[in-house]
Amino acid sequence: MALNVVCLVGGVGGAKLVHGLAQILEPEQLTVVVNTGDDFWHYGLRICPDLDTVMYTLAGLVDPVNGWGLAGDTRNTLQALSRYGEDTWFGLGDQDIATHLLRTEGLSQGKRLTEVTQDLTARLGIPQRLLPMTDTPVATMVDTVEHGELGFQVYFVKMRWQPTVKNLRLSNIEAAAVSPEVEDALARADVILFGPSNPWLSIMPVLSVPGMREALTSRDIPRVAITPIIQGEAVKGPASKLMAELGYKQSAKSVVQYYQHIVNGFVYDIRDTDLQVEGMRGVALNTLMQSDADRASLARQVLDWISSWN
Amino acid sequence: MALNVVCLVGGVGGAKLVHGLAQILEPEQLTVVVNTGDDFWHYGLRICPDLDTVMYTLAGLVDPVNGWGLAGDTRNTLQALSRYGEDTWFGLGDQDIATHLLRTEGLSQGKRLTEVTQDLTARLGIPQRLLPMTDTPVATMVDTVEHGELGFQVYFVKMRWQPTVKNLRLSNIEAAAVSPEVEDALARADVILFGPSNPWLSIMPVLSVPGMREALTSRDIPRVAITPIIQGEAVKGPASKLMAELGYKQSAKSVVQYYQHIVNGFVYDIRDTDLQVEGMRGVALNTLMQSDADRASLARQVLDWISSWN
Repeated sequence: MALNVVCLVGGVGGAKLVHGLAQILEPEQLTVVVNTGDDFWHYGLRICPDLDTVMYTLAGLVDPVNGWGLAGDTRNTLQALSRYGEDTWFGLGDQDIATHLLRTEGLSQGKRLTEVTQDLTARLGIPQRLLPMTDTPVATMVDTVEHGELGFQVYFVKMRWQPTVKNLRLSNIEAAAVSPEVEDALARADVILFGPSNPWLSIMPVLSVPGMREALTSRDIPRVAITPIIQGEAVKGPASKLMAELGYKQSAKSVVQYYQHIVNGFVYDIRDTDLQVEGMRGVALNTLMQSDADRASLARQVLDWISSWN
Repeated sequence: MALNVVCLVGGVGGAKLVHGLAQILEPEQLTVVVNTGDDFWHYGLRICPDLDTVMYTLAGLVDPVNGWGLAGDTRNTLQALSRYGEDTWFGLGDQDIATHLLRTEGLSQGKRLTEVTQDLTARLGIPQRLLPMTDTPVATMVDTVEHGELGFQVYFVKMRWQPTVKNLRLSNIEAAAVSPEVEDALARADVILFGPSNPWLSIMPVLSVPGMREALTSRDIPRVAITPIIQGEAVKGPASKLMAELGYKQSAKSVVQYYQHIVNGFVYDIRDTDLQVEGMRGVALNTLMQSDADRASLARQVLDWISSWN
């Protein structure tokens, strides 16, 4: 297999698949395009949760219990912020802060987020290409029944995704563009994967970057989504709850429908025995990644299945 | 004693006297004016070492061994910066970073350093007034024989004040002004103390703020310097080494001479039995502060001596 794979992802679920792909592909075969709609400013630091989750996962530094943050990290800065009377709802780790400091400093020196990310991943010895979906700061805004419109991290972390979502909006997306690096990776891709990330919160922002849909679909290549929903439930996070709130049936079927004009293949879970994939190719695999071996196994089976299309 | 005391200081030595004064004066009687020539940007954070040392000391949070930084602080962010390949010569503590984050955020919101400092001290429950010498960013630059001109922290921390100093320069001092708060404190002062700080590195920057000398000397009140030199040696830091390099005799006498046009009283150490203070009042006291009680005792004796002038 000498094919080039581009994988679009959000946070933890997507990072697991990326880790699986990294185990079976040569580094130069894998490019990861990451959602930046979750990015925000906090205490003057530019924080990119999804980029960090994927970066820490690929570096082998991620906290194995949470799936995000750094293994063995402490929260002493946070504790000191609390002594100053701050409401410390966002779990800033001390080691994690080093990443935010270097990123923020790089951006303030005029570097693009793509360049800063390249620098950070190189320093951590990550050989794969990790690309933000765009260099323009955009922000996923969550309109809720109970609190009106909330910034993504306030909705997701501070309020633990409990508010009822009415609508999603991407602030500043009209100013965003596909970066030359993402453009190039997509132009050279043999396969595009849509990771098992939240379609609305993680993948929708990527697809919303002006020019992204065209860049994804301009050539006739396999574009395959892996389901984040198993038997109507999200493996992690608010995907299933959100589907209901946005008026979708809580089923992998809704994911197929959501992706129907952009992907041509769908990987659903073997537990969804009654699922019928219509309008595109479909395959049932064990999509639940509980171990490192599971990740590699799923990645291999997905790519093997795609190879069988020819 | 209902007198108002303004104390000019740098870092550790000055902070000890301030702590002594805080033990014997009502909070509203004490204003501390702090050197900001050591301030610098590091990883995008605005760090004010002397302000922090005095603030942490007054809050009872200072590391009792070093005399600066926070007691029990850790360096996990620093360790993570090191993992990114950074040369971590400046000992950023994790708890300490909380201070730098809040300060930097406040400044970036357009607050003056005086306002930010007021906010931070209030949050830590410090009732005394802590004022930066000016709101304008200035920087002590150290011209050295071996390495040319160095930023203060590079000279002081990274190179452990080992280079030979040829000259000192205060970058941007021409743009600085005495803040309304310092102006007001000096106008209401009954006594001005010059803490046992390095006269060249800590007090000279304060005196160099345009308008500061006039504000200090416009009224005929006691202005008393406490020696940082005992028997030709600095209690801490490079004061004695620097004196020799700048062409002064390594003696408290040189401190008297340096301050002669600005102070009218000098407190030297009882160990300097042969010192003759000329051109101003002088008194020998035990200036070595080894315990909290020593600090209060020195503060009380200094103020008692000044009271005896009338």
